[in-house]
Order: sequence, then structure tokens, then C-alpha cells
Amino acid sequence: MMHQNILIIGGNGFIGSHIVDILKANNYNITVLSLHQERYRKPLEGVEYLNYDYGNISVLKEAIRYSNTILHLAHDTTPKVSFMDPLNEVFSNIAKFIKLLELVKDQGKRIVYFSSGGTVYGNSNLQKIAEDTVHWPISPYGVAKSTMEKYLYMYHCNFQIPYLIIRPSNVYGIRSNFEGDQGIIPIFIKKALHNEKIQIWGTGENVRDYIYVTDLARAVYALIRKTSIQGVFNIGFGEGYSIKDVANAIFKLTNQDAKNFIEFQTTRSFDVKRVVLDNTKIKSEINWQPEITLNEGIVFTRDWLKSQLNL
Amino acid sequence: MMHQNILIIGGNGFIGSHIVDILKANNYNITVLSLHQERYRKPLEGVEYLNYDYGNISVLKEAIRYSNTILHLAHDTTPKVSFMDPLNEVFSNIAKFIKLLELVKDQGKRIVYFSSGGTVYGNSNLQKIAEDTVHWPISPYGVAKSTMEKYLYMYHCNFQIPYLIIRPSNVYGIRSNFEGDQGIIPIFIKKALHNEKIQIWGTGENVRDYIYVTDLARAVYALIRKTSIQGVFNIGFGEGYSIKDVANAIFKLTNQDAKNFIEFQTTRSFDVKRVVLDNTKIKSEINWQPEITLNEGIVFTRDWLKSQLNL
Repeated sequence: MMHQNILIIGGNGFIGSHIVDILKANNYNITVLSLHQERYRKPLEGVEYLNYDYGNISVLKEAIRYSNTILHLAHDTTPKVSFMDPLNEVFSNIAKFIKLLELVKDQGKRIVYFSSGGTVYGNSNLQKIAEDTVHWPISPYGVAKSTMEKYLYMYHCNFQIPYLIIRPSNVYGIRSNFEGDQGIIPIFIKKALHNEKIQIWGTGENVRDYIYVTDLARAVYALIRKTSIQGVFNIGFGEGYSIKDVANAIFKLTNQDAKNFIEFQTTRSFDVKRVVLDNTKIKSEINWQPEITLNEGIVFTRDWLKSQLNL
Repeated sequence: MMHQNILIIGGNGFIGSHIVDILKANNYNITVLSLHQERYRKPLEGVEYLNYDYGNISVLKEAIRYSNTILHLAHDTTPKVSFMDPLNEVFSNIAKFIKLLELVKDQGKRIVYFSSGGTVYGNSNLQKIAEDTVHWPISPYGVAKSTMEKYLYMYHCNFQIPYLIIRPSNVYGIRSNFEGDQGIIPIFIKKALHNEKIQIWGTGENVRDYIYVTDLARAVYALIRKTSIQGVFNIGFGEGYSIKDVANAIFKLTNQDAKNFIEFQTTRSFDVKRVVLDNTKIKSEINWQPEITLNEGIVFTRDWLKSQLNL
């Protein structure tokens, strides 16, 4: 059985590392092009690593040469950080992506772009958001993610590039960054393990759709296997939990009442009120279901975090 | 009665010149910031002209200082030309617009952005396209227009910038450029006046929504007057005509059969098949109706063109 050569740009990030795992387990030939090594794990045997900025065109040209499929997960900001320098989204993230697309024109290499189900839709007011909902993102990060989708689709239409656009909801799980400014679950767990206060911007009533990272990786793998599939896919659990719900679930594990640990801070203008993804399309396309509930996923993440923190 | 100081970036272009006319007739104080002078008309008395690239931040800062309202019509490509250098859209059009938005943050100046109803929706498959339809543009030009809308809305949400987004359909009329690569009506009329063949890419069955430029200007003026209005507005006639229909209407005026003058060329991948705008929203918001039919508008444009060509 022939296997595909896959290039994973940003493959050493949190989500990328789980995509690498499932593809490696299925004997794909994997090259990771990622600025840094993985944060919480040593390089894996049998995976080729190129630790470069993918804006380095010489490296990129060499990396794509033998790849049939290119996964793109690299993004050098978070929604919060993206406000510091909105032009960075344009000159770095969007421009580098266009350079990649220019390199793969008319070659038939499939591009799988990881967008952001949590930010591209903005404040949609919908109970569940389907893929054909209009985008009105409210951070430079969200605008860039939406724009990069549009460039990919436009190149697909004009230059025969097979494409997939993945819109994950809020992804969490083992190896998620607990030292950054994105992803409340690992950050809250770390605070709970240390009996420290957590900060919530706004009332804690903003609702998100939390998907465990291996559930996401399974869905992505199934889409990659079906080489005929093209289009846009939401990948979320399809259930909404408020930030307070998440805090309660996390502090319950240490037999504590979240109420005593929450510090409310002023609302941030770029936090959307509600994002729950309609996952009907991906469920029917690949016969997939998310399997790991929020409580299970929090336990997995906590146990991993305890080992990382030597607790 | 107090009048507003209006800055019109790109005010010396075809559409801009008609916006200048209606605002001038209504005693607004007008500054035009436009790289070139008007193509077919001398500078108007009482209008301040700044012939600079609006990417020149020193000029831009001075130009916006006394403006309450800023209209943005500048774009340095067409759909066709945008393929020559897709990165230009990012480094020029999108980046300059972000720099403008950074300059007007938190000042309450209203931004009126002229997007493109003909390109941002891509191939929507809808009979009439309403404002809340998802964007899948198929040219770098269309992606840039869509992206600039998103940046404006994002700045509106975070930095209190009152905003209007105008999505005109295919605009034509007097002073439209008959020497460029965009706008079939003036180009076809010129050929018909010279008994020359016209080129149609594809079958001639692509359908567009043609709005006469003064109908557009009236709608824009009504929106500008109502300073409380924000949001996105399609401005189109709301009727679809095929390219063949347009050719027939034009050649009929010279008592000729368009069939004898059409040279069919290969389909271009970036020409959308059908764009007819749903104009329900603008009609109800400002009690506006398009008044000039396609046949009337073609006659007006032909008569003007004859005088330009000394025929």
C-alpha cells in the first residue's frame, strides 16, 4: 500500500503534534516544518523535522517538493496578541500563506488549512453555527484566518489546488500550552492545582464549544484519507459551555468551589459571546462522532499537567 | 446649517467623481485625496485636491485632521490585473487601509468603504444575493475587497469607528474609463462607434447587475446624510442582464446586429457566472429606487463618449 508524503507546517504546535501522532500511527511519511521544536515532547523517530520559518522560501521549496499533501497550522499570533500589531497579520501570516500558494499552483498538491471556528464567525447570534455562515471576525487574528481561507479557495478555483478548510472549535487536551494567553482549560487547571485565583474577563457567561484534541485529530485524519473530499468543515463537539461551567468542572476535581477562586475582570471587546459549531456536515461526511466529554477531557488534561508540573 | 467636512480617498476615479458632484451640489466641504487628477474632467472649483498616494502617512494625517467622514474608494488593481501580483493586494491595498484605520481609532470619524458587490460573493448560485451571503471571491481583487470590509468591521467593534460598507453592482455611466480592462459598457460602446469587433470571454451568458452611476451616487448621498446609519448595503439595480443582452442593446443603437461583431474567447476562471444584487435593504432604509434603465444609461454613456471621441 502506497502512502502519502505529508508536509505539516506548524506541526510542532499543540494541535499539530496530535495530527503527527495519528498520521505516524498510520504509516504516513511525515515532514514537519515548524519554527520551534515541540514544547512538551522530544522529536519523534521516523519524522523529519525542519526547524525554520516557513516564510523562508528556499526551505519551503525543498520541503514541498516531495509532498502530495500540505497541512498548514502555523500562525504567529493569538487573538489577544494580534491587536499589538494588526499589520503583522498581513505582512507575516497572510503574505507567507500567499507565497506558499504561489509555489504550489497547478501542481495538484492538496492543501489542508487550519482556520479557526472560534473566531472567524464573530458574534453570529446563532445557537449553532454552520459552515455557510457569513464571517464578521472581531480580532485581527480572526480577520487573518478568514482571509487565508479566502485566498486558498480563490487559488483552488483558478489554479487547480485541491483544498480542505478545517474550522476547529476551542481545542484542548494534553500538550496544550498552559503558559500562554489562549486556551482557558489548561490555564485554569494549572491555577486550580496551585490553589491560585483565575481571571475571567466579563461575566463568565460567554459560551464556547470545547473539543478534545484527539477527537479533532481523528476527524482530520479521516478527511485526509478521503482524498476526494474538498470544502469547509466545522469540527467541534456541538455543545456549548460557559466559562463558569468550565471553571466549576475544573475546581470540582479538587473538591473546591470555583466561586472562591474567580476574579472577574472587565469585558474584552474581542471576546465573542457565543460560539457553538454545527458539526452536522463533518459527522455525515466521514461518519465521525466526538467521543471525549468535557469532564473526561479535563481529567486527561489535569493528569498530564500534574506530571508536567511534578505534582 | 452646519455642513460636514468630507475626505474622499480615490475621489478622482469614475465613481468618486460622481460622489463629489452630489456632495458639492449639497454644499459639503470636500477634500479629494487621489493619486491622479480626474481622467476626463478638470479640477472643480471649491474642492480641495491632494494628489498623493494615501499610503503617504504624513499627507493622510493632515487630510483626515478636519474630516468628520472619510469615504474610501481607492484601489490600485482590477480583478484581471490583480492576478499579476497577488501579494500587491496585501502590501498595497489591505495594508494601506489598515494604516488608515489605525489613524482614525477612537476618534468617532465615520468611514464609508466602497467594496465590490460584483466580486466579493463569488459564484453564489443565488438568483439575487443579499448582504448576509457568505463571501467566496475568486480573484485576488475580490479577496482584498472582502478582507478590507472585515478589517473595517473589526475596527468598528473594538475602536468605536462608525462605519458603512457599500457594495455596488457593476457601475457604468459618463466618465467611466473606456480605455481600461474593467467595465464592458463603455468598452463595447467605443467599439460599436468605431464598427470594431468586441471580445467576449466565455459564452456571453454571464449575468450582471448594471447600475447607472448617478443612481449609485444618490443612494450613497442618502446614506451619508443619515449619520446614524451603520452596516452593509448592496446598491444595484436588482435586475440581471447577460453580456449578450448588453452587446445587443449597444449595437441596436447603431442599427447593427451584435452577432456580427462578437468574437468569443476562452472562458476566464475568475469571471463569476451570475451576480444580481438583492437591493431590498437599501430601498427600505432610505426610500431609494434606481431610476435609469439599462437602455437609458447606455444612451447617456454613448452620447458622452461621442463627445469625448469627437464623433
